Order: sequence, then C-alpha cells, then structure tokens
Amino acid sequence: MIPITCDKKSSVPIYRQIVRQVKDAVESGEVGEEDQLPTTRALAQVLGVNRLTVGRAYADLAKAGFISAHVGRGTFVAPRPAEPRRPSAKPGGATQETPAPRLPWRPLFTRSSDRAVEAGLPYAALGAAGPGVISFASLFPDSALFPTEPFRRALDEVIRREGHRILGYGHPAGHAPLREMISASLRQRGMNVSSEEIVITNGSQQGIDLVARALLDPGDVVLVENPTYTGAVQVFRSCGAELVGVPVDEEGAIVSLMEEAVSRHRPKLIYLMPNFQNPTSETMSLRRRRALIEMAASRRLAILEDDFGGDLRFEGPDLPSLKALDRSGCVIYLSTFAKKLLPGLRIGWIAAPTEMAERLTGLKKIADYSTSLLLQAALYEFCRRGDMERHLVHVLDKYRGRRDAMMSAMKRSFPAQASWSRPHGGLVVWVTLPAGVDADEVAAESESRKVLVGRGDLFYLDGGQGHNLRLTFSQVSEREIHRGIRILGDIIKRRIKARRAGPKVSSAESLPLI
Amino acid sequence: MIPITCDKKSSVPIYRQIVRQVKDAVESGEVGEEDQLPTTRALAQVLGVNRLTVGRAYADLAKAGFISAHVGRGTFVAPRPAEPRRPSAKPGGATQETPAPRLPWRPLFTRSSDRAVEAGLPYAALGAAGPGVISFASLFPDSALFPTEPFRRALDEVIRREGHRILGYGHPAGHAPLREMISASLRQRGMNVSSEEIVITNGSQQGIDLVARALLDPGDVVLVENPTYTGAVQVFRSCGAELVGVPVDEEGAIVSLMEEAVSRHRPKLIYLMPNFQNPTSETMSLRRRRALIEMAASRRLAILEDDFGGDLRFEGPDLPSLKALDRSGCVIYLSTFAKKLLPGLRIGWIAAPTEMAERLTGLKKIADYSTSLLLQAALYEFCRRGDMERHLVHVLDKYRGRRDAMMSAMKRSFPAQASWSRPHGGLVVWVTLPAGVDADEVAAESESRKVLVGRGDLFYLDGGQGHNLRLTFSQVSEREIHRGIRILGDIIKRRIKARRAGPKVSSAESLPLI
Repeated sequence: MIPITCDKKSSVPIYRQIVRQVKDAVESGEVGEEDQLPTTRALAQVLGVNRLTVGRAYADLAKAGFISAHVGRGTFVAPRPAEPRRPSAKPGGATQETPAPRLPWRPLFTRSSDRAVEAGLPYAALGAAGPGVISFASLFPDSALFPTEPFRRALDEVIRREGHRILGYGHPAGHAPLREMISASLRQRGMNVSSEEIVITNGSQQGIDLVARALLDPGDVVLVENPTYTGAVQVFRSCGAELVGVPVDEEGAIVSLMEEAVSRHRPKLIYLMPNFQNPTSETMSLRRRRALIEMAASRRLAILEDDFGGDLRFEGPDLPSLKALDRSGCVIYLSTFAKKLLPGLRIGWIAAPTEMAERLTGLKKIADYSTSLLLQAALYEFCRRGDMERHLVHVLDKYRGRRDAMMSAMKRSFPAQASWSRPHGGLVVWVTLPAGVDADEVAAESESRKVLVGRGDLFYLDGGQGHNLRLTFSQVSEREIHRGIRILGDIIKRRIKARRAGPKVSSAESLPLI
Repeated sequence: MIPITCDKKSSVPIYRQIVRQVKDAVESGEVGEEDQLPTTRALAQVLGVNRLTVGRAYADLAKAGFISAHVGRGTFVAPRPAEPRRPSAKPGGATQETPAPRLPWRPLFTRSSDRAVEAGLPYAALGAAGPGVISFASLFPDSALFPTEPFRRALDEVIRREGHRILGYGHPAGHAPLREMISASLRQRGMNVSSEEIVITNGSQQGIDLVARALLDPGDVVLVENPTYTGAVQVFRSCGAELVGVPVDEEGAIVSLMEEAVSRHRPKLIYLMPNFQNPTSETMSLRRRRALIEMAASRRLAILEDDFGGDLRFEGPDLPSLKALDRSGCVIYLSTFAKKLLPGLRIGWIAAPTEMAERLTGLKKIADYSTSLLLQAALYEFCRRGDMERHLVHVLDKYRGRRDAMMSAMKRSFPAQASWSRPHGGLVVWVTLPAGVDADEVAAESESRKVLVGRGDLFYLDGGQGHNLRLTFSQVSEREIHRGIRILGDIIKRRIKARRAGPKVSSAESLPLI
C-alpha cells in the first residue's frame, strides 16, 4: 500500500495532495505494478475526508495513466513503460554486491485471501477513540469496566495452585472444567449440550472460521442477514462461498424471505445473530425462531447461531436460543467472553453436535493446536469464584444506563425524519437517516468534529444505500453520549436543510468508476 | 467414531473384542451409515495392539457386511437394509414427541477438512506419559523445567502496572514492544528484519496456517522434506495443495534433488526446518543453505523456514538462517516460544517481507482477530527482565544432558545393525532399525512395556517403510532414558533373533485390504 496522508490545513486541495503523493511514489519507483491502492471508501475513511475527494483524485490519476482498475481485484498502479532490465543473478553468483531482484509477493497471494482481506473493515474503523474523541464506532467493550483486579487474583491463584501443569499445551477441544462449566450454563438456558460438544476457541471469530473450514467449499452458498457482521463475511468469502442476504426488521431476519432464498439458492449454511443482531441491534422474535428451526430441520440445513452478546440483555425475558429449540441437531451455537468480560482473553466457544464438535476439534488443532490453557484455567477460576456474575450485574447496569442515555439524547437531538432502533440488549443502535442525507458524508463531517460513527454501508453485502449509521455506546460515558449525539444531530439537521436548499447528486452515483 | 476399547487380560482374542463392539454398535443403531472407523494404524495405536490384530477384525467385519471401504475416504459403517421409515416431521408440527430425524453432519464436511484431519497424528500419539510410563513419543517440552515462578511474577507485574489497558484487544499484528524485541534479536542473528515485518501468531502452527492461506490454492505444489512435521502437512493438505517430498540426509534436505523436483513440479512454496529438522533431527549444512537460497532466488520461489527449535543448540556454531542469507526477499521465517519456553503461552511469530507481513496480518484478523495481548505483554516483560536468557541457559544444560544420556544408552543397548542421528540441538533422535525389524511392531511391543516411541512412518508423506522411530528426550529424565532405551534395545534385539529363526511376512504386506 502507498502511504497516503493529507494536510487539511494546506491551501493545496486534498485531491491534489493525493494525486501528488501517488505520482511521486510511482515515479520514484517506490511503488510499482503490483501495488494496490485502497478503495476510495477506505482511503476516505482513513484520511477522514469525503469519498468524492478521493474519487476525484483517483479519476485524475487514472486519466494520467498512473493507476488502473482490475475487474474484481481493485485498483493498482498501472504498468510502466519497460525499463532496461537489470542483469539477473547468475546461479551461484548472488552476492550482496549484485542484489537479486526482489520477489514480488502480491502475485503469489491466493484469490481467496484477496477476497477475505478486501471484505474487511479498514483497521481505522475499529480503533478506540483518541483523546478528545467520542467514538460511537467501535464495538470494543469499555476497558474501564474490566474486572482487572479480580481477574489478576484469579490468574495468580491458578498459577500458584497448579504450577507448571497449567503452562503446557492444553487439549485442542479446551480445558475440561471450563467446557463442563459452559455446558452446564447452556443446559440452564434450555440447551441440551454435553461438555463433549463444547470446543473452546480464540473468541467467536475463530469459531466462525473453524465452522466455515469444516463446511464451506468454494461455490457453497451461505445465507446471512443483510446487513451482517463483516468478520463473518470475510471468513465465508475466504472459503470461496457465495453469500445471499436476507433483510432484517424489528423481529429479526425475515424468515419467509429466507425460505424463498433457500428454495432458490440451496444454501449449505445459515449464519445469523438472533440476539441484538450486529449491526441492526434487532432481536429475532420467538415466532420466527420457531419457524426458522422448522424450516432448517425439514430442509436439512445447518445453522450457525452467533450469540456473541446474548448475556447483555437489559430488559425483557430471555428468548430460547435456536439451539434450545433445535430437535434435529442442525444448530451450531457459538459465543464469546470478549464482549461481556475481557476481549484480551480471546476465549469463546462452540457448542455443536458431537460429530461436528469432533471435526472442529481436529481443525482447531491444525489452526493453532489449542487455546492458552493458562487463560482458560484463569477464566474458569474467575467464574468459579462468582466474579463473573458480579461483573455481569455491574456491566449490565452501566450499559443499560448508556443505552438509556442514547435513547433520550437521540430523541432530543435527532430530527424527526431520522429513525433508530431501541435495543433490548447489546451495545449498538442502528440509525436510519432521513432520505437524501448521505451516511458517508455525515460520518466524514462528524469525524472532523471528533465524533466517530460506524458507516452503515460497511455492513451490507451489496454496499448499502448510504442511509444507515451504526452507533455503539459501549465505550462512551453518559455525558459524552449527550455531547456526541448533539453534534451528530446538528450535522444531520444541517444536511436536511442544505438538501432542501438545492438539488444534490447522491455520492454513490457521482463516484467515478475506476 | 465408534468408541472401541479392549481388555488385554480377557480370554476373548482382541480382534474378536473389536468385532463384537462394532457389530453391537451397528445393530443397536448407535452408529449408522455415516460413521467412519479409524484406520487400522490409528486404532492399533490407540489400543496399543498390533495392526494385524485390528486388520483381522476389520476383515471379518467387512466380510460380514458391517463395514466397507470408500476409495479415498476411509472405512465406514456399511449401509443397512432399509428400515421402515419414521414419519417425517410435518412443517409446523415438529415437537418433542415426534423428533425430527437428526441432521447427518459427515456428508456436509468439506473434502479439504477431511484431508486435513486424516493427515493428522492420532491424539494419543501426542499425549504425555501417564504414571510409570516412559514417553519418547511426545515433543512437548518438560513442564518441570518451566520457569513458572518468574513467569508468574512477570504476568502479575504487567497487570498491576498496565491495568485494564492490557486486557483489551491487541493489534492483529501483535504487541509493538514484543515485535520490536523479536526483530532486534533476529537482527543480532544477521537477519535484516524490522518490527513491521513481524506478525505474532498463536504458536508456529498458526504461523504455518496463515502462510498457507495466503499462498496456497488447490492444486498448488509445496516442496517439503520427507519425512516432515505432520502439523504442516495437515495445513497444506487442508488448502488442497499437492506435496512433493525431498529426502533428508546428514546435511539436511538434499538440495540437488530439490532442484530436480522444482523443475518437474513447479512448486509455489518450499517448507523446511533447517535446524534440528523434525523428525530426523538433522541440520542443513551452510553449503546447502546457500545453494537453496540461490535456487529460490533464481527460480522465484517462496521459502517458509520453520525454525521452531533454533535456540536449542547444544554444540557447534549457529549457522546463518535462510532468512539471513536471503537477498531477494523470498524467505518467510517463523518460530515459537513453545519449545524453548512455555507451550501454554501459544505465542510464536512470523518474520516476512512487508507485503507478505501485511497480508498475514489481514488473515490473522480473520482467523482470530489477535493473540492475547496480556500474554504477549507478560512474555515481553519476562524477556525484558533477563528471565528468558537465564531460562535458556538452564534448559539447554538439561536437554544437553539428556541428549548425551540418549547417545550413551543407545550405544550400550541398541544392536550394531541399528543406526541413529546425533543431534546438535533440538529434542529428538531419529532411529533407523535393522532391516526386517518393523517399527510399528517394535512400537506396539514397547508400548505394552510402558515405553512410548514415535512411529517414524507417521512423518512420511508416503507412509514410510517401517524402518524408523522418532525418540524424543524432552520429557524423560536421564535415569529413565537409560531404563527406557534398555527395554527398547531388548525388543529390537529379540526381533532380530526371531527374524533369523524363521521367515516372516512384513506387516504392511499382510494387512487385509479393506
């Protein structure tokens, strides 16, 4: 990647700054034919500028022959006129004086890894807020709420008690007492799961990855909610799977449309988040859960139920998980301690029918042999002491307060034409902007005012329509919520006025096609 | 899998015990058409019996129509005569009273995950020794040598000092100070590596997996040493890669044969372990290292250099790594803290050219987002305090003593017709048995006498020829080494005599083909 920066205080227009940097890098030979440019969207996000600005720069560069687009692969530095070739190193003669030409790696990369990496969020979109910045963009839990001291004590106790035994390799399926504890807690929630059916993973991300490796060949179809979690999209694409999206409403994924999609596309797997769906924050109704399970059983479909945040419910009764409703053994259930406890543990789990659990254990062994035994044992100790329950009570109280603050602040500051979800749990609010107000532009402007938001389009399989924002409230205090939402509300309201003042081409349509 | 056990004290022959259990399981409906049986080799290993015994049981079962073999997939329970079908659950009517038929998972598994799991060692082959058992079979380091107390202190200090900051998500590429420390130590060893070129992984297993995902499409060819590390074979096969083996002698992999293989098979990647190769324990000579690097540069090949045990050298000067000799940027280097320090940390690293390091970081993010920040920070703290150097001095001394004990015990107890490696480092000795003495049979008999050894054939791409044993000495005290090697020597000597006494069909030839 060409490192591109911009100086917003400069009198040189930003698009010209971008053009200049790319030209310089190409002409100096610092980058060459194999080098890829970020998408306009990604670069705009990193620089905190409008996509149109980047689009204009790219259009100029393409016109001047510096860059070109490859179908299905992205934008690359264009081939340069042939240079006089360096004499290639003779066999037996490669020394420091006549350096061998560098091996270009990009052409060696697999197409599947291209697809996977392209489908990801830019790292900047995930980062925590810097000083003075209010971040509604990151789904990371609030580190200030971590039970640091109780966890330190549990960890220290485990090493003192177990000694060197706890520092060796663990079983690929996970630490037996932790698996037993997890299966017991799932049984309490109505899931008929034995400890042999539990596989410990490095967070839910690895859980999704292992399931995909077990089930998805290139060309297989996966039905997902649209919008959905980008980390799952990346994994499925990396297996060469085709994704078919099903829309989500206030009752969760629309199962009647799912049935149509199943008939038409014959998927192998359905991936969904019935509780506090990411990014829409909606929860699937019991009615739809039952209908989905029946359809899956009769159509012989596998379901991957991602319950990453099921414990983070602020109100209303727990609904039975798909796994709890499942009588035909078609549901793989996964969850994680990352959101409710400590992301740094990287501990999640899968509960799957025995045959599948065995296959996943085999694949876990190949992927990284096992999850740290020490951290699994410390987590078990932490839970055994009752620290987990205490912690959950504490964070639920905090996050409920923030959810309430979001609701009241949005009601006060957002225009009536905007709408938003009212989550019963989780850490996210999903906003639909008034018609004609572009989410990317709102995001860029709010970023310049030190309020970060999630661009809703990033979560759509098809790029979305520029109507949505994902606002997380996990890392923002109630005071900051009120301040940040007020700023956002101002921006949206001003854009409604501006739109009324004159016709405006939507940014998606006016982006140059390069 | 059908859980099969055996009672060696029973008067019922073991093969009949196996037949009975499989028949019972099939007839009771406990297992059905989708259920796979272990290979004769794997089951023999798990039960600690001769392969011939299992082979005989399988032959009887096949003859009686209970099991059958599928080309390329293994042995499965045979289809049963049609049973009266249960009425299938009507849509909308699935209840607990009329259970839906169970979803069979095995037919859903990807072929690539089949290949990967099949290529693996049975878990029993990796286990640590039970009480009274001497294990030369496991490459796990000796947990009694772990620096438990200094590590506990480093971990505790890090949490106290850094607080909640250290319990959140880390950067996918790894903890910056640790990456800096690793790159500095590589530079000291002559490798021109910056910290941006380091990616932290969950042990070397994940390193191999990420590299394979970045580079290997189905059908791509990987050149490997033969025999080689089975964990790598599994990963490459899971990507659908074809493996081509190159033999290893006292100077390591034979580079002239590698050149031939390159011309014929046009591999995309060469995977090898130049130091203390697993399982042969041989180290590649400097001459061959140079030749290999020159060939790779001129043929534009990528090399994956697995230096899992490079720090565990007992004698002789360190040889420059391939990475240190590399002028064309074709080498990806990886290593781990598992063998020399603490397996339970699950921390390894990759040093790769920038473009590759970026791709690997993207894939790491998809695989499991990041390695535990807490453990990375604790490891950094542990090294910063000088505890790592102290620990290495200590374990090298211990392991050198065990290597010496192996050498003197084998010289005393093994027959002159056997030969074995004399490793300059690492934790393994590679034994070549006298002609006509079958390694599997030696392994089975020694296991019955509570001495576990590694069957050499497991490490060959092509199944080997029954001549080799891998003996690890990492977990065995010097006293136990002498006792265990004496028992092994007895077994081998008796088998030489038995062979002289009468003609004997090799077990590989007499195995029934099912």
